[in-house]
Amino acid sequence: MIQLSEDQIVKVTGDVSSPKGFQAKGVHCGLRYSKKDLGVIISETPAASAAVYTQSHFQAAPIKVTQDSLKHGSALKAVIVNSAIANACTGEQGLKDAYTMRESLASQLGIEPELVAVSSTGVIGEHLDMEKIQAGIELLKQTPAGSGDFEEAILTTDTVIKQTCYELAIGGKTVTIGGAAKGSGMIHPNMATMLGFVTTDAAIEEKALQKALREITDVSFNQITVDGETSTNDMVLVMANGCAENECLSEDHPEWPVFKKALLLTCEDLAKEIARDGEGATKLIEAQVQGAKNNLDANVIAKKIVGSSLVKTAVYGTDANWGRIIGAIGHSAAQVTAEEVEVYLGGQCLFKHNEPQPFSESLAKEYLEGDEITIVIKMDEGDGNGRAWGCDLTYDYIKINASYRT
Amino acid sequence: MIQLSEDQIVKVTGDVSSPKGFQAKGVHCGLRYSKKDLGVIISETPAASAAVYTQSHFQAAPIKVTQDSLKHGSALKAVIVNSAIANACTGEQGLKDAYTMRESLASQLGIEPELVAVSSTGVIGEHLDMEKIQAGIELLKQTPAGSGDFEEAILTTDTVIKQTCYELAIGGKTVTIGGAAKGSGMIHPNMATMLGFVTTDAAIEEKALQKALREITDVSFNQITVDGETSTNDMVLVMANGCAENECLSEDHPEWPVFKKALLLTCEDLAKEIARDGEGATKLIEAQVQGAKNNLDANVIAKKIVGSSLVKTAVYGTDANWGRIIGAIGHSAAQVTAEEVEVYLGGQCLFKHNEPQPFSESLAKEYLEGDEITIVIKMDEGDGNGRAWGCDLTYDYIKINASYRT
Repeated sequence: MIQLSEDQIVKVTGDVSSPKGFQAKGVHCGLRYSKKDLGVIISETPAASAAVYTQSHFQAAPIKVTQDSLKHGSALKAVIVNSAIANACTGEQGLKDAYTMRESLASQLGIEPELVAVSSTGVIGEHLDMEKIQAGIELLKQTPAGSGDFEEAILTTDTVIKQTCYELAIGGKTVTIGGAAKGSGMIHPNMATMLGFVTTDAAIEEKALQKALREITDVSFNQITVDGETSTNDMVLVMANGCAENECLSEDHPEWPVFKKALLLTCEDLAKEIARDGEGATKLIEAQVQGAKNNLDANVIAKKIVGSSLVKTAVYGTDANWGRIIGAIGHSAAQVTAEEVEVYLGGQCLFKHNEPQPFSESLAKEYLEGDEITIVIKMDEGDGNGRAWGCDLTYDYIKINASYRT
Repeated sequence: MIQLSEDQIVKVTGDVSSPKGFQAKGVHCGLRYSKKDLGVIISETPAASAAVYTQSHFQAAPIKVTQDSLKHGSALKAVIVNSAIANACTGEQGLKDAYTMRESLASQLGIEPELVAVSSTGVIGEHLDMEKIQAGIELLKQTPAGSGDFEEAILTTDTVIKQTCYELAIGGKTVTIGGAAKGSGMIHPNMATMLGFVTTDAAIEEKALQKALREITDVSFNQITVDGETSTNDMVLVMANGCAENECLSEDHPEWPVFKKALLLTCEDLAKEIARDGEGATKLIEAQVQGAKNNLDANVIAKKIVGSSLVKTAVYGTDANWGRIIGAIGHSAAQVTAEEVEVYLGGQCLFKHNEPQPFSESLAKEYLEGDEITIVIKMDEGDGNGRAWGCDLTYDYIKINASYRT
């Protein structure tokens, strides 16, 4: 553990089990052919918890069960997650199954069911094989802790696990924040098919945590897009168990902004990892917008750019076709004065004064051959800044999704 | 010419030059390698005209010039159109060039410049080669009428020409409506990269025509999507020259609804042809929504479905993955009660009561192997009906757009 000064936030190697008092596990229970498909995060003490959920009209059964758990006091000791089957659009039986998952884990841990959250990801409209889930929960009991196993168990079409970890000092105590996420396709606004799990040993007032999570989600997870889709199962859950023994954080606490910054960095890391691992993606695309009317406008424009199929295919083809970027900005709902928009790519100005600017095509192509592409837009509407993340659109996206179920 | 009874609207073989008093031409002026790239529609008398334009913040120069022409009395005698170069984002010079196109054609026809509309489509940010344009306008003069040449001259990545024609009777006079369009990529709301030209020999009050065009555009051209993009150059133009010698149509005229219906059919045909010819597309997808809260909600949902990358790839893969359809409906802004939504494909019910329904996968696959796919959604929110059209998302979309400029 590093000695941290005030206001210092350090990225460290770690994951959801790095904060004190947390462990994570994952097993193969048979929903998938051979990969791990059932995981759990357990806190040794009840953790103040907050969550944000998909905005879909078809919220999946596990979302409803988690909402029910958080209605009873906003404290959690565990979350159980399965992949392969989303348990969405599964009617009464699906809801019953999600409650059974909650009950089974709670009974094994000897805790109240309301201290358990449930989360699922995978194919919509298929029922869970509850025998396999029950056997998996038994197996979890005997399985040693392993956060890598948990991270694998929550994946679907993802190609890599996603984790991050930060340390900071609050009132002289070291506080750790760890995160894990999944998400690859069906990624767009309002959480899309993505799950995010953040643990921290900080002591935090629930209300402040919920408010912070909502704000941070808007500029992190809600600013990524892979394909404009929103899933039935999206959820970001934060659990704060207080094991760091810091003075309880609240909005009035002098070090609240530092904690919030660290939580933002954690969510931003996970969000970017999801965008980078978009289905079929070869590149992470970041759009930075400066000088929009306000931050909201800047975020809207940034997201339009990374969400544009034509920008995405042009980046895939390493084609500095700034017309695609202009096209995307052009149909955003934000305030845009054409004459004031400037477009930069890899340090070169491509567009200014509503006219193309001379630039080196070969340098632009070289820049686009990298695996992290940043598109910078400067405007003159106000002080609004925003960012968004996406990925290129490739043949493999089609391949993966033309026969997802087969 | 067929004898038409009142209220009868008949689809006939024809195009923009079928209505009396119109001719259309197209030539190769050298903006494209060998295909025709400059076209004109000419009316022998001034035609009451109406237009709708792209909502992009970066409206192209020709759009501004056409708006200027229609400001001076809403009558047009001609429209000149080039492909290959969009003359968008081309600053002062671009605007000057668009005005020069208008002047040159007007001077050749011996008419006021304000009687000419200008339209361009193609790559953004490049200047027109005005010598080629000028020579092309000269060449047009000597070229015999040929609406097929016009239809070819307005294409970019389109693979087929788009035309339609209807006849109807107004007060005993036969009235003809003809249409031509282009559009393949960058197709989404608010006109996208598409051009639509509709001619009719009906006599119509300008104001009624403009109002009808706006309404009809909302349920035809604005209900298609290929890739969620909006272009800088989109325009739909209707010219009504009165050569049919019918009693002038206005909103109070008893036969106005019949004319409006025929205009709607014309625009719908062209819109569907654009969707069917979407970049890389192999299938036309139509979404029909019944029983939404209102028509607006129904249209929003229908468009979400045909706009979903995951629905589009699933249709391409002939995979009856109704979960993708639910996903798309789920994140629409419309009012949706999950339990009341029913999903039908090829006559089979796939989803009802928030649960999957048993259906024949092989029949569904067989249906999806056709080249026109209709997805029907039944709801119980109200009387709203709506439709939208799109196409499947295929490898060829990526291929076409990864290196559009090369």
